[in-house]
Amino acid sequence: MAQKPSIPKGTRDFSPLEMARRNYIFDTIKHNFRLFGYKQIETPAMENLSTLMGKYGEEGDKLLFKILNSGDFLKSCSDEDLLSRNLPKLTNKMCEKGLRYDLTVPFARFVVQHRNDISMPFKRYQIQPVWRADRPQKGRYREFYQCDADVVGSDSLLNEVELLSLIDNVFNQLGIKIIIKLNNRKILSGIAEAIGESDKIIDITVAIDKIDKIGIDNVNNELREKGLGERAIEALQPILSLNGSNSEKLEAITNILKDSETGVKGIEEIREVLETFDGLGHFAEVELDLSLARGLNYYTGTIVEVKAADVQIGSITGGGRYDNLTGVFGMSGLSGVGISFGADRIYDVMTQLELFPDSLDQTVKVMFVNFGSAEAKQSLKYIHALRNAGISAMLYPDSTKLKKQMTTASSDNIPYVAFVGESELGTDRFVLKNMDSGEQKSVSVAEAIETLK
Amino acid sequence: MAQKPSIPKGTRDFSPLEMARRNYIFDTIKHNFRLFGYKQIETPAMENLSTLMGKYGEEGDKLLFKILNSGDFLKSCSDEDLLSRNLPKLTNKMCEKGLRYDLTVPFARFVVQHRNDISMPFKRYQIQPVWRADRPQKGRYREFYQCDADVVGSDSLLNEVELLSLIDNVFNQLGIKIIIKLNNRKILSGIAEAIGESDKIIDITVAIDKIDKIGIDNVNNELREKGLGERAIEALQPILSLNGSNSEKLEAITNILKDSETGVKGIEEIREVLETFDGLGHFAEVELDLSLARGLNYYTGTIVEVKAADVQIGSITGGGRYDNLTGVFGMSGLSGVGISFGADRIYDVMTQLELFPDSLDQTVKVMFVNFGSAEAKQSLKYIHALRNAGISAMLYPDSTKLKKQMTTASSDNIPYVAFVGESELGTDRFVLKNMDSGEQKSVSVAEAIETLK
Repeated sequence: MAQKPSIPKGTRDFSPLEMARRNYIFDTIKHNFRLFGYKQIETPAMENLSTLMGKYGEEGDKLLFKILNSGDFLKSCSDEDLLSRNLPKLTNKMCEKGLRYDLTVPFARFVVQHRNDISMPFKRYQIQPVWRADRPQKGRYREFYQCDADVVGSDSLLNEVELLSLIDNVFNQLGIKIIIKLNNRKILSGIAEAIGESDKIIDITVAIDKIDKIGIDNVNNELREKGLGERAIEALQPILSLNGSNSEKLEAITNILKDSETGVKGIEEIREVLETFDGLGHFAEVELDLSLARGLNYYTGTIVEVKAADVQIGSITGGGRYDNLTGVFGMSGLSGVGISFGADRIYDVMTQLELFPDSLDQTVKVMFVNFGSAEAKQSLKYIHALRNAGISAMLYPDSTKLKKQMTTASSDNIPYVAFVGESELGTDRFVLKNMDSGEQKSVSVAEAIETLK
Repeated sequence: MAQKPSIPKGTRDFSPLEMARRNYIFDTIKHNFRLFGYKQIETPAMENLSTLMGKYGEEGDKLLFKILNSGDFLKSCSDEDLLSRNLPKLTNKMCEKGLRYDLTVPFARFVVQHRNDISMPFKRYQIQPVWRADRPQKGRYREFYQCDADVVGSDSLLNEVELLSLIDNVFNQLGIKIIIKLNNRKILSGIAEAIGESDKIIDITVAIDKIDKIGIDNVNNELREKGLGERAIEALQPILSLNGSNSEKLEAITNILKDSETGVKGIEEIREVLETFDGLGHFAEVELDLSLARGLNYYTGTIVEVKAADVQIGSITGGGRYDNLTGVFGMSGLSGVGISFGADRIYDVMTQLELFPDSLDQTVKVMFVNFGSAEAKQSLKYIHALRNAGISAMLYPDSTKLKKQMTTASSDNIPYVAFVGESELGTDRFVLKNMDSGEQKSVSVAEAIETLK
């Protein structure tokens, strides 16, 4: 029986043109990862659930795709277990494996598992799909790629600077104007400390984050609701109204945080990163943004987020420094810093700004029209020679109507078409047509290579 | 609590060196796919189970990795269902999705689903992992890559010739000497027909396949056990003892099959493919092999299999022509031909023959030693310039002992090390050391670029 074929919701097929565009992004990122000395690794799509569970919060556990055990998956389930319908417990008994949710946890697992084969500092990159059972919506998929670069085993802030240079290079080469937003977790801790509300750091950060949207008064009200005292709120006001250049902001915040050791350390760190990065010269705009709080429970130093300057979209790259990536796998005290490029959002930005080169539409450089068996065989010899010269070439496989063959050439954006007709058969020449200009001329293979190179 | 991290059996982590070697294989294959005009597509890792089930036989259904539905996966299961422990039925109720088992079925699904956006003939390639819940053993994994190229919508035998050229190019570039084994399903049908045992085609093929291992007498006994009559077995003898060159074999078989229309057609096809391919010139040895019967129920014309000449290992590439790829999804009459490169076995062959270029061990071209903050910042400027010239470069992030830094450079096979010491600080020069020869000299950035290019 014929089925109407479809794919699971939240997943995607990629057409040749989409693939060419995606590869353009991946290749640019990969090229820079390599230029910067990051080494590629890959990990399996499936990890043991014991590796994944509990690493992404309770909500994250639910978003893991779990794989049913092979064979008798009910083996460990008693009738009572089954009738209890205790989903987490049954999942645990029926599934040992899950699809990776991100590249960070598998990387941490990799570092610990292969600790004897890795020399520190270890700079790794990884470009692979991840899967999340999120509710699909525009721009959010259940299968998507992450492109991560991390350095572990080094405290040096030069790693942060290098990652900023990497970001700058990638987006400059893609043609996307960006704003790099920088913050430091220690500054956030310092602020909470300075106003005497260390335990409310998350509420404070969330509130700061909303100023642009809801205004200072509403932010203050929200803080009151969260239980912050009036004195703390008052002490926070200079921070909420912080503006000006990065150095002006730094100066102001230095003054406010002067009594917080952690805060002072955070300011030193961000100053060092900014100055060194500025000293190298860069294309990106860099903005100190104290409201930046991504991965607050995870990052311990620098926090970075990249926004597209000309498109309204969430962050297109993000990362930061963490001090305990591998602790959960029994290897503590390993500091690292990393970033993750969001390929899907970068794709959307480039589409909206029409930044993809036109040449990505092309599949092959030249198509030989098929006029029949003898002509086709002669064509294959030329095609052979062209390919040896590195030129992509194909023969239309069937000797169907010329019009149909030409339609293929033009719908596939093939820039040149070649003809070996009856009159060319005895010769070592063929006709090469430029599909754009319409110009055509008789050429030898060597001349064709010259033109098509 | 610290966990001892591990990965699911049958899956693998890939180290940077393994990745470099795998990429070398993938890049060579991909480069040729593009040169030949195949267009890349990708499909989701997860397909609906309705797409996958029943496509790989009963055994294949068991080898599919099934994904537990999100949320209440027992929703459709009554208590009775659960207590019945009817595994296939419960799987069906608890799982809608599975991991792809190969690239062929997803490709067929893709072609039908996107039929309105695809122009025929459609040449596609696809390089993605597949998953099978097979028992893991040496050389057999539960996650592995397939590299497929197919043309659908064209009957022309020139497609077969092109695929043979593609195989020839790829293995020539990888440096692997190969034997391409060719057969045609129609010849196998012809043989069965000619000896009056059309319904025993599989038994006959399996028997022919064993001659080298068990000898003619045992093969004949086996055929008797399978119920072949003495006359049929006698008629088969000239085929079993077929040897000599391809043209000698073709001549002999032509004689035997002269009364079978299908057989004659098969011989014509294989002759045409062989002659055209030979006319183009090739590196690979090509051998007509009537025992070749891979995918017997699936292929309808040409069957091809590639063996490494210098390593004892199963086939490293295989494929053939099929006439009803998309029929199961409601689109019949679409003929196609395709091949699949087995990247893992190719990797094993290349490792055994030591064919990987030494340069794959290198990660970056030059590492700058870190002598302290000022020196490091100066180094970053040079590194910046080198990268802009396309040279991969890195700074050792920490100013630790020189010996530790040099150990990293040599264990990472970094061919050049650069030094910006105190005495270089005021200058625009630094010291570049060739790690292989030990030679070192003072250079400007421009001179370094010249040397490192």
